Amino acid sequence: MNYKIENAYLLLDTEDGFQVEKKDLYIEDGKIVRIGNANAAKANAAKADALNANAAKENAEAREQPQAMDAGDYQVINAAHHLVMPGLINMHTHAYMTVMRNYADDVDFDEWLFRRVMPVEDQLPKEAAYWSSLLGCMEMIQTGTTSFVDMHMFHTQSPKAAMQAGMRGFIGRGLVGEDLYGDGYSRFQEALEEKAAYESDLLKFILSPHAIYSCSEKLLAQVAEEAQKQKMLKQIHLSESEAEVQNAIDKYGKTPVKYLSDLGFLDQDTILAHCVKMRDDDMDILLRHQANIVTNPASNAKLGNGFALINEMAAKGLNICIGTDGTASNNTLNMFREMGLLSLIHKGIAQDSTAAPAQFVLHAATANAAKALSMEGKLGVIAEQAYADLIFIDLHATSLYPNNNIISSLCYSANGSEVDSVMINGKFVMRNRKLLTIDAERVYYEVDKIVKKCL
Amino acid sequence: MNYKIENAYLLLDTEDGFQVEKKDLYIEDGKIVRIGNANAAKANAAKADALNANAAKENAEAREQPQAMDAGDYQVINAAHHLVMPGLINMHTHAYMTVMRNYADDVDFDEWLFRRVMPVEDQLPKEAAYWSSLLGCMEMIQTGTTSFVDMHMFHTQSPKAAMQAGMRGFIGRGLVGEDLYGDGYSRFQEALEEKAAYESDLLKFILSPHAIYSCSEKLLAQVAEEAQKQKMLKQIHLSESEAEVQNAIDKYGKTPVKYLSDLGFLDQDTILAHCVKMRDDDMDILLRHQANIVTNPASNAKLGNGFALINEMAAKGLNICIGTDGTASNNTLNMFREMGLLSLIHKGIAQDSTAAPAQFVLHAATANAAKALSMEGKLGVIAEQAYADLIFIDLHATSLYPNNNIISSLCYSANGSEVDSVMINGKFVMRNRKLLTIDAERVYYEVDKIVKKCL
Repeated sequence: MNYKIENAYLLLDTEDGFQVEKKDLYIEDGKIVRIGNANAAKANAAKADALNANAAKENAEAREQPQAMDAGDYQVINAAHHLVMPGLINMHTHAYMTVMRNYADDVDFDEWLFRRVMPVEDQLPKEAAYWSSLLGCMEMIQTGTTSFVDMHMFHTQSPKAAMQAGMRGFIGRGLVGEDLYGDGYSRFQEALEEKAAYESDLLKFILSPHAIYSCSEKLLAQVAEEAQKQKMLKQIHLSESEAEVQNAIDKYGKTPVKYLSDLGFLDQDTILAHCVKMRDDDMDILLRHQANIVTNPASNAKLGNGFALINEMAAKGLNICIGTDGTASNNTLNMFREMGLLSLIHKGIAQDSTAAPAQFVLHAATANAAKALSMEGKLGVIAEQAYADLIFIDLHATSLYPNNNIISSLCYSANGSEVDSVMINGKFVMRNRKLLTIDAERVYYEVDKIVKKCL
Repeated sequence: MNYKIENAYLLLDTEDGFQVEKKDLYIEDGKIVRIGNANAAKANAAKADALNANAAKENAEAREQPQAMDAGDYQVINAAHHLVMPGLINMHTHAYMTVMRNYADDVDFDEWLFRRVMPVEDQLPKEAAYWSSLLGCMEMIQTGTTSFVDMHMFHTQSPKAAMQAGMRGFIGRGLVGEDLYGDGYSRFQEALEEKAAYESDLLKFILSPHAIYSCSEKLLAQVAEEAQKQKMLKQIHLSESEAEVQNAIDKYGKTPVKYLSDLGFLDQDTILAHCVKMRDDDMDILLRHQANIVTNPASNAKLGNGFALINEMAAKGLNICIGTDGTASNNTLNMFREMGLLSLIHKGIAQDSTAAPAQFVLHAATANAAKALSMEGKLGVIAEQAYADLIFIDLHATSLYPNNNIISSLCYSANGSEVDSVMINGKFVMRNRKLLTIDAERVYYEVDKIVKKCL
């Protein structure tokens, strides 16, 4: 299906930052093929002589508009009173944990992980992870996330859920152990099998060693090698807690960042979740490697790990992205909440109302994420040849009204419920709040059964 | 209209904290008259002999159930799959500022106040404040707030909007100047006139000197005296910014808290908004006066004032309540966001996952607020003889699913959109997300006109 989206305000990422402009959007075969107002272009062309160079250039472009622009070839979507923007990119989550939402709150970390989360994980049947992941996809779609980066523990369940949901997934089977080809072999094989079986336009796979405390030095070096060989990105949890950093210093005489750097693990593109506890020259090391930082403000606060040094990392020029982490430590997969949190927390820490502005936060949730995923210009942006991963924000939602500054309302006012339609890869997965790919009642039914049996 | 609410889960405030129980709720003339399950009670009565003392007592109560309990006298509301809880109490806002949402973001405080907010305020026509306040009421209702404490600058507009919305308001005309009976006289007269004209079951009035830097020592002392004479509560902004505290120390040789205490201003019930910058023995002074603290986490962070010392204040035993402040500094009136922020920020600061738990935060948004308003047992609680100010939370909302822990989901997972019905004083003001007292399209139309003219 090809679409022409009319009357919308578009969130465009320009050299001067995000701008909101009223233009039409043409979508063919899952991609944005043209941005521009056909009618306005015709009107402008007639008075081109009177216009300045820029406008003339615009008109020239408008005149080149292909015949396919005829509305007849497109399903026309009237998006009046809506902002159309790139879908948000949740750069770190564990969708399979959604069934554990609010299962272990207000308890200390050891209680949370060892006596609550892990025992449940251990007895979850594989298909439970599918329904749990699908529930996570539901929530992400409903709150405007179109792509997610996932680390999972249940073979094929996350890609299957993403496929059912029609979401764009960057997915990795969690790897742990001493030796990728020894005790870690079955998990590594699963990771490669998933890639072989499911890789597509929508699904990509990422090598995902869990953390430096759950993977040996050997295994991490092997993963770095395999990532290069398989041309895969890598992700890992890093410097999430004080204990992790202190243990690394005790054991290796260096911070987790330095440890990974010395291993060569950071030499190629790497996605680093958390990065809360930066010490010594950690940030400089990360910058040298152009590592991608995923901050998880809700999770880091909720588990008592504190606040990452986002203002300092951004000032250094590090590429900052945003993730929700799993629901067991958040407890929602709502990127709008995460964006607001990020800005408010880091304004508060800096005691500076201009810190972590909306423009920065929106970039973190879109273009920065695309860069980290080697999808610059293809994801997280409204641009010709970008994937049509778009969300439609109801500008008549009370929470955004009046629309004095749409860009800052996305960061400071939106709660996620203003998203009323979601398109991924040129296909609607939600229209007017109605889910088109997921049977919510079935998901609830299956999730209820899991809760009864395993929690 | 009398109501019987069936099949709901009720959020009950017990000696052991909040508990969720499935019981019926009977409402007559705006008040809760009975909590209990009539059918279950009958069944229990039959086997009373087999029950322990507590259960027997419960059954005895059940048998005393008045004839009016016959469902015929009540409109029966089937609230299956819903949590019914006390409406949230927004303890500090300026509803008239809603039209300025997102009007001045990511700028420094002086730019925000003196070059953006105040110039707009100066040229707002009086009726603009009505529509702006009504827009604020709309957002509060939609996100589960049933009572709000308001400080306004436009005679009668806030009470009129609250009346139209059917909200419970605790409202005060902002007072500034040198002398309550001199240059402050007209504002003081307005405050008293509002009280005389609008005070009702739903609307109460609060004397509202703006701040120690905008009111003279004399005026503050006069307000304290008048509050006693008129039997009115008082509210004031206090110790919001570093500049306010430093100026007080420079000018008076003491903190704003000590200054107010020495003036006798804290001798009777007082509601203190912000209280971000506590120094010396400020907290002990506040505790001695049993002052009520309203924390505004979003506003304090967003304007760069930082984070209040909530963990310390709560540990001291101070009564902590929650407010959103106005939209110009938040930028939403969503108490669910505020509750989540409060918990996450103070867990993060303490680096303790057990700090500011959901139970504490929910109390702050309900029973603590009622206490500050001298409405203990009447507001912020589901109890016999309490006002029927109730919100209905859709437990099938994806963001809350599965309902592993409903209480903590209200703090960590809800975004406010899960509220689908709102009852205030026994009357529905929203049913199934449909507003019953406010014509949203009319509000948008009027607000658009104001934006065009004044912003």
